[in-house]
Amino acid sequence: MSKTKVGIINVTGYAGVELARLLSKHPTVELTSVTGRSAAGQPLGKVFPHLSNIDLTITTELGDVDLAFSAMPHKESAKEIIPLLKKGIKIVDISSDFRLKDPAAYPAWYSFNHPGPELLNEAVFGLTELHRSEVASARLVANPGCYPTGAILAFAPAVKAGIIKPDIIVDSKSGVSGAGRTLSLNTHFAEVNEDVSAYSLEGHRHLPEITQELSLLNKNMVPNITFIPHLIPMTRGILTTGYATLVPGKLTEGPKGKDELRELYRAFYKDEHFVKVVDFPPHTKYVSGSNFVLIYPTIDLRTGRLVVISAIDNLVKGAAGQAIQNMNVMLGFLEWKGIDAPALYP
Amino acid sequence: MSKTKVGIINVTGYAGVELARLLSKHPTVELTSVTGRSAAGQPLGKVFPHLSNIDLTITTELGDVDLAFSAMPHKESAKEIIPLLKKGIKIVDISSDFRLKDPAAYPAWYSFNHPGPELLNEAVFGLTELHRSEVASARLVANPGCYPTGAILAFAPAVKAGIIKPDIIVDSKSGVSGAGRTLSLNTHFAEVNEDVSAYSLEGHRHLPEITQELSLLNKNMVPNITFIPHLIPMTRGILTTGYATLVPGKLTEGPKGKDELRELYRAFYKDEHFVKVVDFPPHTKYVSGSNFVLIYPTIDLRTGRLVVISAIDNLVKGAAGQAIQNMNVMLGFLEWKGIDAPALYP
Amino acid sequence: MSKTKVGIINVTGYAGVELARLLSKHPTVELTSVTGRSAAGQPLGKVFPHLSNIDLTITTELGDVDLAFSAMPHKESAKEIIPLLKKGIKIVDISSDFRLKDPAAYPAWYSFNHPGPELLNEAVFGLTELHRSEVASARLVANPGCYPTGAILAFAPAVKAGIIKPDIIVDSKSGVSGAGRTLSLNTHFAEVNEDVSAYSLEGHRHLPEITQELSLLNKNMVPNITFIPHLIPMTRGILTTGYATLVPGKLTEGPKGKDELRELYRAFYKDEHFVKVVDFPPHTKYVSGSNFVLIYPTIDLRTGRLVVISAIDNLVKGAAGQAIQNMNVMLGFLEWKGIDAPALYP
Amino acid sequence: MSKTKVGIINVTGYAGVELARLLSKHPTVELTSVTGRSAAGQPLGKVFPHLSNIDLTITTELGDVDLAFSAMPHKESAKEIIPLLKKGIKIVDISSDFRLKDPAAYPAWYSFNHPGPELLNEAVFGLTELHRSEVASARLVANPGCYPTGAILAFAPAVKAGIIKPDIIVDSKSGVSGAGRTLSLNTHFAEVNEDVSAYSLEGHRHLPEITQELSLLNKNMVPNITFIPHLIPMTRGILTTGYATLVPGKLTEGPKGKDELRELYRAFYKDEHFVKVVDFPPHTKYVSGSNFVLIYPTIDLRTGRLVVISAIDNLVKGAAGQAIQNMNVMLGFLEWKGIDAPALYP
Repeated sequence: MSKTKVGIINVTGYAGVELARLLSKHPTVELTSVTGRSAAGQPLGKVFPHLSNIDLTITTELGDVDLAFSAMPHKESAKEIIPLLKKGIKIVDISSDFRLKDPAAYPAWYSFNHPGPELLNEAVFGLTELHRSEVASARLVANPGCYPTGAILAFAPAVKAGIIKPDIIVDSKSGVSGAGRTLSLNTHFAEVNEDVSAYSLEGHRHLPEITQELSLLNKNMVPNITFIPHLIPMTRGILTTGYATLVPGKLTEGPKGKDELRELYRAFYKDEHFVKVVDFPPHTKYVSGSNFVLIYPTIDLRTGRLVVISAIDNLVKGAAGQAIQNMNVMLGFLEWKGIDAPALYP
Repeated sequence: MSKTKVGIINVTGYAGVELARLLSKHPTVELTSVTGRSAAGQPLGKVFPHLSNIDLTITTELGDVDLAFSAMPHKESAKEIIPLLKKGIKIVDISSDFRLKDPAAYPAWYSFNHPGPELLNEAVFGLTELHRSEVASARLVANPGCYPTGAILAFAPAVKAGIIKPDIIVDSKSGVSGAGRTLSLNTHFAEVNEDVSAYSLEGHRHLPEITQELSLLNKNMVPNITFIPHLIPMTRGILTTGYATLVPGKLTEGPKGKDELRELYRAFYKDEHFVKVVDFPPHTKYVSGSNFVLIYPTIDLRTGRLVVISAIDNLVKGAAGQAIQNMNVMLGFLEWKGIDAPALYP
Repeated sequence: MSKTKVGIINVTGYAGVELARLLSKHPTVELTSVTGRSAAGQPLGKVFPHLSNIDLTITTELGDVDLAFSAMPHKESAKEIIPLLKKGIKIVDISSDFRLKDPAAYPAWYSFNHPGPELLNEAVFGLTELHRSEVASARLVANPGCYPTGAILAFAPAVKAGIIKPDIIVDSKSGVSGAGRTLSLNTHFAEVNEDVSAYSLEGHRHLPEITQELSLLNKNMVPNITFIPHLIPMTRGILTTGYATLVPGKLTEGPKGKDELRELYRAFYKDEHFVKVVDFPPHTKYVSGSNFVLIYPTIDLRTGRLVVISAIDNLVKGAAGQAIQNMNVMLGFLEWKGIDAPALYP
Repeated sequence: MSKTKVGIINVTGYAGVELARLLSKHPTVELTSVTGRSAAGQPLGKVFPHLSNIDLTITTELGDVDLAFSAMPHKESAKEIIPLLKKGIKIVDISSDFRLKDPAAYPAWYSFNHPGPELLNEAVFGLTELHRSEVASARLVANPGCYPTGAILAFAPAVKAGIIKPDIIVDSKSGVSGAGRTLSLNTHFAEVNEDVSAYSLEGHRHLPEITQELSLLNKNMVPNITFIPHLIPMTRGILTTGYATLVPGKLTEGPKGKDELRELYRAFYKDEHFVKVVDFPPHTKYVSGSNFVLIYPTIDLRTGRLVVISAIDNLVKGAAGQAIQNMNVMLGFLEWKGIDAPALYP
């Protein structure tokens, strides 16, 4: 049986290289083309020694593939993708260029006018757990941002069930790889090691994704979200701690309500391979290198608040792993094919 | 001029050893006695090589001092302190044993009945910035917990001014030294490195301190606080991100309200040596090893929420440094004597 | 086709749990039994959440298996293994109990008399690259120590070829997971983070393994080795830097000799799947989570010294991965089956 | 009494900013001028928030000072310094521009012709412990490199006493701050975190300093040094492990020789405030933020080799602290004035 040919546009960032790592061991696809401007002409395994077993040279132009992952920066990605779609190549876009449905969001949040606004409705927001059937028939999937993946999955069951009020606080703690491979003082070792700080307090670009998706889950609710990301001294992982006030009367008061809450979450995710609703506060270490998501919903009984915590690996479920999960669905493979390895612990 | 003699009860934990570091260079006190059960009989500099210039042997019993710091664990500390007070020795207690005014809080939060409930009212909660004049005349100061120091200072101006509603979220991120020197899987390097997690979701023991102190600042407000601490892979530092809804009409809407908010905070702390209200999100690295506190208050304009971030070193302003700040006030010294060194950066 | 049944004795340490991670995805064996005294009776996935997809309960006694991995501590391991061998179960022993051929080495280095000295000659030292054919027919393989794996592979080609004098310096830098999951002040986060130190300067227990194996490679050479291990603040990985004086006349002087040296190493490892002789100083990050070894041999032209650097993951090639590599050879599988995933980078 | 005015040329790197931290609390000098091209015009405390208590603006030109520290990069530093010397300003140069006595070393190692070769003999190599009296009368002190400081102090007593053969191995492990504040993939957090690697295997620029200074200590010995630096995932600190073969007959064989060795080192450093010869393998954490050096000399009894380990803080004793130590000597102050704070532990 011949394998499906896939390619990676801009393999040289952390999402691109993580795609290559995972795709190189995927049983039913073959990675046949990787592009990257700065490193064009070099063997992939020379630029990234951990990939030396992949026999590919980085090129400027994408080769002949059935499906391509774009790991280009936003704005650049749409430009690369649109011609490929026309050629009939299926696309999973890791960038943010097709995540937001509202064309006006691009100039507002990303400072550019979208070059293909007519595609925004067609593009499927690839949080697989929420849009599986649309992903299955899509030719263009917009892979979610890393923070939105953790935040939306944490709140989706509660929003859908209408058990919380719309005032939502999302406090996320991310490893530094989320900031990419581009050099910056914020990611300079001596600055970020032994340090923690919040950033993007004026509004992080991942906020509209979170708002859009939570809004879709419940027509009776207009979520009012404050989202504050933090950078912490580790490489991989995002822990999201979410807070919201429970609507009185939906869950039994007292400890029993906690059990009902957990059951509600478990029911919501009962068919999901990658989402595990747990009964302890999750650690990002438990999902490092894997596509799994751990979610712990609980109630602060003193105040009647939902506290929900999710842990993901920002480069796997938050980027490359989920992209392959989407690819699997698009191509009709088993959803967890090639991405069901357990986390690397410790 | 003879120096005031001071001692440290239980020097062998991180708070104790940090006291020794700072006191060894204090210009007007002399560290003359350090106790510690497990290491009794050994030179301090042998157990802690960085203190080898301090010529003291760890003893079982406290020597003759004018003021003692207790770095004993809770429950043990009160027992040690009460007889010393009777001898006329002034005390700064790093433990939690005299922080809470309500005797019922001890069995509820710490599982023991307080051995000296009559002292709870006399003891001064040593958040120096809020209780300076009481500290000045106290014989027993209860040094605040590390989390409460960062959280209370972050919210005090807003609570006092009545600009926020009582629903308060406190999301704190702490370095691992806050968990002490006692061995535990939670502080085992391979477990906590490259990891982040929340803990004490059923209610952390520092919550009643935060509630007690914020309540005292505004009689019209009963704060309703959710406090979730997180452990992150660094040694020192606590970053606290606080969230609360603004009371409409107190601050001008829009960006101007942010300036007013910052001015309100600056006015509140205008005479404080150690508190700096800054106009950027603070990093814990900027206060590492120092007694300074950085506070950044801002408004999430989309939602009308106060977001306030504070950064401290948990072992200095959150423990030993603040203890010496209190000692300075108790003994009539300049408040920043011996503790005004800048942070160690990077 | 039925899979071969394998078990892990003492799954609760880092080597044991890493075996479980890798075996759970091995295509031709089935992990059917895991033992562990402290956690007996608990589901494996409850004690180690990243393994929640493995449906096994930790037991006291090993179940019915064809091959067992022992991850017991030294001295205990031999006692567990000997009865199993008698039952016909093949064994890969991760402990040091069967690594040394000389029975006198056990009291000298490990302070116990070996309970089965007659097995020492039969046991095969499982550095697969050096003892492949013996491993293939072995019923008892002694998996090498983590440091010896990196050190022996770094020096083997040079020793075998007789190009270096017997005075060998081995300076190794290890991540903290090598010290295991048992609590200790040396592995307490706040102590080891932002720190580096040497240890075991009186003679580390891995020294006799290194000496034994290098001695076997060249009958004309009695290696005279100083081995100093260091602990550095990371979880996984060992970088070994080796130094030895070149025997004059064996390699061309000047830069050309470097090329000859590299060719000599490449020839030595030309059929090896897991050993890559590279032309740059390797990083442990390039092998993290993988069974690969990177080796960079070079010459300090100013002094005529060999400098050779190897990088491994101490828990994979230095423990669990190599154990499975040995199992694959023992059971006649492809050597890299189940353990050829690329490293997790970054 | 008026304080001596001092300035810092190029305050914006890690050495410069560390000078500012330490000088701001020095009791007998006043920091009155700080320069820096990129940040000229900005308040020092705005660029470096931990220095907000220093009321200085970064300027392009150095103000009127009695002594200046140059923290310029090599090649640039000499050009800045020469005119200042002519004006009668005393200089401590943190760069390498005046460390090497041989003018030919600059084109060979640093790729530039020295602009003031006539000054090379006058300049004093500021390893204070070895050149104190020359420093006292110098107008130009060349502050040693960070690696040479640790390496030379580790070997000086052994070389001076002639107890080792000239074949010397220096294996150093450095924190990342040693690579400076300039951005590079080698210092990008996600690359260097959880990683260790060797670098500069073709010859690090600090090698000629080490050779020059050890050669001066013993006319009968031409040291033949291999020096390999390593980068490890921490911010501050250098641990140097040195190896050399003992000359037979100089020390008693067996354990007694170890004691003699330690006594030899203690005698050598008996009057030194900052050098502590210890009887345990030192940790860099024990000197973090301080000007102290810990040295542990021992003998590998199996091989008759000296193994000597030193620990320093690369930014303090390896740069800014030692520069102030030299300044103190040059200005006739107590040598440890302003730099005798204990290390920040943990």
